[in-house]
Amino acid sequence: MSASELKNDLFLRALAREPVSRTPVWMMRQAGRYLPEYRASREHAGSFMDLCRNADLACEVTLQPLARYPLDAAILFSDILTIPDAMGLGLYFEAGEGPRFRKTVRTAEDVANLPVPDAETDLDYVMRAVSTIRSALNGSVPLIGFSGSPWTLATYMVEGGSSKDFRHLKAMIYDQPEIAHQLLDKLARAVTDYLNAQIRHGAQAVQIFDTWGGALSAEAYQAFSLRYMKQIVDGLVREHDGRKVPVILFTKNGGLWLESMADSGCDALGLDWTINIGEARRRVGHKVALQGNMDPAVLYASPETIRAEVKRIITDFGDYPGHVFNLGHGITPQVDPEHARVFIEAVHEFGSR
Amino acid sequence: MSASELKNDLFLRALAREPVSRTPVWMMRQAGRYLPEYRASREHAGSFMDLCRNADLACEVTLQPLARYPLDAAILFSDILTIPDAMGLGLYFEAGEGPRFRKTVRTAEDVANLPVPDAETDLDYVMRAVSTIRSALNGSVPLIGFSGSPWTLATYMVEGGSSKDFRHLKAMIYDQPEIAHQLLDKLARAVTDYLNAQIRHGAQAVQIFDTWGGALSAEAYQAFSLRYMKQIVDGLVREHDGRKVPVILFTKNGGLWLESMADSGCDALGLDWTINIGEARRRVGHKVALQGNMDPAVLYASPETIRAEVKRIITDFGDYPGHVFNLGHGITPQVDPEHARVFIEAVHEFGSR
Repeated sequence: MSASELKNDLFLRALAREPVSRTPVWMMRQAGRYLPEYRASREHAGSFMDLCRNADLACEVTLQPLARYPLDAAILFSDILTIPDAMGLGLYFEAGEGPRFRKTVRTAEDVANLPVPDAETDLDYVMRAVSTIRSALNGSVPLIGFSGSPWTLATYMVEGGSSKDFRHLKAMIYDQPEIAHQLLDKLARAVTDYLNAQIRHGAQAVQIFDTWGGALSAEAYQAFSLRYMKQIVDGLVREHDGRKVPVILFTKNGGLWLESMADSGCDALGLDWTINIGEARRRVGHKVALQGNMDPAVLYASPETIRAEVKRIITDFGDYPGHVFNLGHGITPQVDPEHARVFIEAVHEFGSR
Repeated sequence: MSASELKNDLFLRALAREPVSRTPVWMMRQAGRYLPEYRASREHAGSFMDLCRNADLACEVTLQPLARYPLDAAILFSDILTIPDAMGLGLYFEAGEGPRFRKTVRTAEDVANLPVPDAETDLDYVMRAVSTIRSALNGSVPLIGFSGSPWTLATYMVEGGSSKDFRHLKAMIYDQPEIAHQLLDKLARAVTDYLNAQIRHGAQAVQIFDTWGGALSAEAYQAFSLRYMKQIVDGLVREHDGRKVPVILFTKNGGLWLESMADSGCDALGLDWTINIGEARRRVGHKVALQGNMDPAVLYASPETIRAEVKRIITDFGDYPGHVFNLGHGITPQVDPEHARVFIEAVHEFGSR
């Protein structure tokens, strides 16, 4: 079997809006704390970043959900903040506080001094993880690479960590937009290089996570988030090893802006659960595939409820090509792994043609 | 002058979609921590709830922003969680943690045992504040009463405080919807009684704050949030003292659902900043007035930027009746009060006809 042959290509075919025998399914954050085997690996590794930095451990946790469930894609286990960390900001995690940076980026000088990391050398641990996982998958399912969007990375870099109102970055975009544009352009170049390196090392699709784009006004979203995701899409290697490499854009709380996202040149949009997927399909037409969109909180409910919600979403999407089933955001740590199984099996049942 | 005469009725006339000489303006959370005089009153009062429970102090802080700025409406100073507190859940505030309840509501029995408070007796301190403020305003500008929406109140009651994913309430709506409906119906009845009492005591308009409705799926929003806001709108006294009493619905992150909100029977929709206000107007037509929608983070920027953003929003809304200028959410504690002044004066300048 050649490197590009796949036993299960449902995910890539759905992203290409080709007819498939069954709706493919994966879960954002599928390698995560809801799995006891993940918690064991994490404990063994030490910190979260130790897990990300060790290719064998990153591979181990990436494969854990695939060993349990009939999923149609694997996703690289890593953090969205690897790029700012490689820029020298000093990523660390404080218990219960989320990610933090030792240095923040707030002035023109701060931005000018930021290096654009070389993905092959400065983020070599990510590339080793990609190669290791791709090899371990052995063509069973495709491997998804990913990055945070420039806007989302910038929120952490400028605020110094998680934020409720993105006070400093928003003051920057409104008051010193040229500094914000310099930062976002630098980040877009770094993300492009990073995703292209992931593709070279074996990622067969890539997703850009714009977790905080939805906190922007309609106008600012276009100028400060979508614009830089377009720049990345334009710069990505879109074919590798004889196969198209699809790009998925996911702006959480971006439901109002789907038309402009679909015009970005990407292959698919990730949807959170606030929009009905049938309405989303009518709005974007056949321009892109759609990925989503069950509320992850449904996994707290009973098996019957989970099955009913999966069936509703598949029915609402309708009998068209181009649907990848997923949650509308990451699976949460408190979910019972057996409920995740019910979810995945329900997609197999109701998504079969 | 009769009790219902007003020196400045721009706000009420804009809500009625009548032509006005200038776009009226007020700010959500205008009596708040960004004002040094508020912080002084708060310190003097003791706790936040002590401030709410003392009619004279509540009146004092309500009037503070009106003494500083040419605002077109006052809003009752109170908390959105007064109703659950009156239901016996034991509201308290933990420093940096937001509101908490000593008791949570999670079972059919918990819901059955919840009393529907009588607004006149159980929430008499709120009614005294309304009467005191209305009297102190002396017809200068209208007084807005308010309540949290049933869904939003339920999130705090079921989770026991603030929450990121509303895990327990979402499990309830998906798995035991009948319990959730009983709770939300009880809350809708309590809110109706509460707002009607505020209207009797002098509130000349009311706003329902649905802070967390935007966390629901499109389908669940209709069934578990909007439905109960409609029930309230249907039960409200819509005319008092010879004047219409307009109702404003504000669902944060509800931009996808404006059409159904506009069909609820309310007079106006509050908009956060994620939707362009011109697009919102085209979507709802002349059915309702619109209130909003500048990102409060713009107040961190320079006076020139604040003015430019005010001008853009007024231009985007267009030359139609029915716009009340506001922020898209509450003003934040770190804002310079002089920036709030620039904002309000810019609405006066660019909103004049």
